Amino acid sequence: MSDLSRFSLNQATTKRWPMDATVAGCVAAGVPGIGLWRDQVATFGVERTAALVRAAGLSVTTLCRGGFFTDEDWRDDNLRAIDEAATLGAPVLVLVSGGLPEGSRDVDGARRRIGDAVGELVPHARAAGVRLAIEPLHPMFASDRCAVATLGNALDLAAPYPAEVVGVAIDTYHLWWDDRVWTDLARAGAGGRIACFQVADWITPLPAGVLLGRGLPGTGCIELRRFREAVDATGYAGPIEVEVFHEDVWSRPGAEVLEETIRRFREHVL
Amino acid sequence: MSDLSRFSLNQATTKRWPMDATVAGCVAAGVPGIGLWRDQVATFGVERTAALVRAAGLSVTTLCRGGFFTDEDWRDDNLRAIDEAATLGAPVLVLVSGGLPEGSRDVDGARRRIGDAVGELVPHARAAGVRLAIEPLHPMFASDRCAVATLGNALDLAAPYPAEVVGVAIDTYHLWWDDRVWTDLARAGAGGRIACFQVADWITPLPAGVLLGRGLPGTGCIELRRFREAVDATGYAGPIEVEVFHEDVWSRPGAEVLEETIRRFREHVL
Repeated sequence: MSDLSRFSLNQATTKRWPMDATVAGCVAAGVPGIGLWRDQVATFGVERTAALVRAAGLSVTTLCRGGFFTDEDWRDDNLRAIDEAATLGAPVLVLVSGGLPEGSRDVDGARRRIGDAVGELVPHARAAGVRLAIEPLHPMFASDRCAVATLGNALDLAAPYPAEVVGVAIDTYHLWWDDRVWTDLARAGAGGRIACFQVADWITPLPAGVLLGRGLPGTGCIELRRFREAVDATGYAGPIEVEVFHEDVWSRPGAEVLEETIRRFREHVL
Repeated sequence: MSDLSRFSLNQATTKRWPMDATVAGCVAAGVPGIGLWRDQVATFGVERTAALVRAAGLSVTTLCRGGFFTDEDWRDDNLRAIDEAATLGAPVLVLVSGGLPEGSRDVDGARRRIGDAVGELVPHARAAGVRLAIEPLHPMFASDRCAVATLGNALDLAAPYPAEVVGVAIDTYHLWWDDRVWTDLARAGAGGRIACFQVADWITPLPAGVLLGRGLPGTGCIELRRFREAVDATGYAGPIEVEVFHEDVWSRPGAEVLEETIRRFREHVL
């Protein structure tokens, strides 16, 4: 078994690499999996992307992203996202749940609505064979991107629904600072709730807006191997995506970034 | 009793207002308390500041800040900070504990060292009559300013030491996103650990470096009144500082900012 057997390139890491070049680059590098983004898929075409990855023999590990339950058309958009995941053969749809509605200060209410919205998607997701992954985002995004800010809260919101339909996304970047993360990871594993595992490193200073501050594995301060071992120890044996958003990474050639990502994955994650 | 009886201006909110003007401005506005910063105190002189606030009849509610236990001279510097607090009549020294040492990925180790360092300061703090307040900072500061990122962790680190010498700082800006904060506030109150209470609002987008992103009360999304009521419900009846760092606030005249701060305190905190 190749040491890359669980590696997946989340295509946000090489955001400006066109879809067909990304798929060809993954094949050339011996990468077995890819995490896709809906905007990129829409540009290339859903059916066309599905055919491309299938012909290349790549596994689609996740589709990013559904959620944003604060948007007016959240229901239709998430139903479409589930259908797209099914078409692409993605077993998991990652949900970034949205923050507080404009002018609201009710973060508890926002979390309740997120849980309810996920519940409304369960029948369609189950029928489509797509698992929903509630992703806790770093607390710096709590007001404007995702009110779910801890793994513990994500697990609480997932709890009312069957684990085979609703899980959680584990992303090192969002969770590393939490002194309770190791306990919550064990809880996630015991409940069979880990739907996907994504890796990025924490680097400072954070840029304005803080969205594009993620580092390639090993460039920051997160104990990535400890995370991988803790996730594995729960019984999770699925893909490990590397997902980095950073202007400095995006501005480099995709193949070069992929090569470095693989090298760093071997050094710092495996 | 004036409705400002618990109000305290943390002087970081009006950072560019000189010390003597700040103290005079507080007196003129009927403000009974002030939170001081060591750099400002050093500029004006420790003894001179102590005499100024005493003559003005102002209570010094906190001295900000000790901590940064990653610095080489942390011990001497914190002993000095305790002495300065005693001279100023500040009952509380706020501790911003420092992040990870350069090149380190050991956040657990960083937290252990913070707890140990606080313990080393206990005898001197007790003798000086100054209470140490471990401040959990927002997780976006965990690597470079403060590895203590949750109220729960701050309480764990304070637990080995007597509550009358080691407490925690409650700051709405740092804690609002935490789904466990209400439980942890009750725990803090039950243990008599709330040493001080600071208020600022959460606004986005965050600026580069994220330090100067705090909003005046009511400009953001935090349920400030709920926090104040939850803190009060634990039995805390001490000062409520407003502490805001933001370039747009700092660039305005101090007296104007103080007037708006008081108005917003009445509207959104009381």
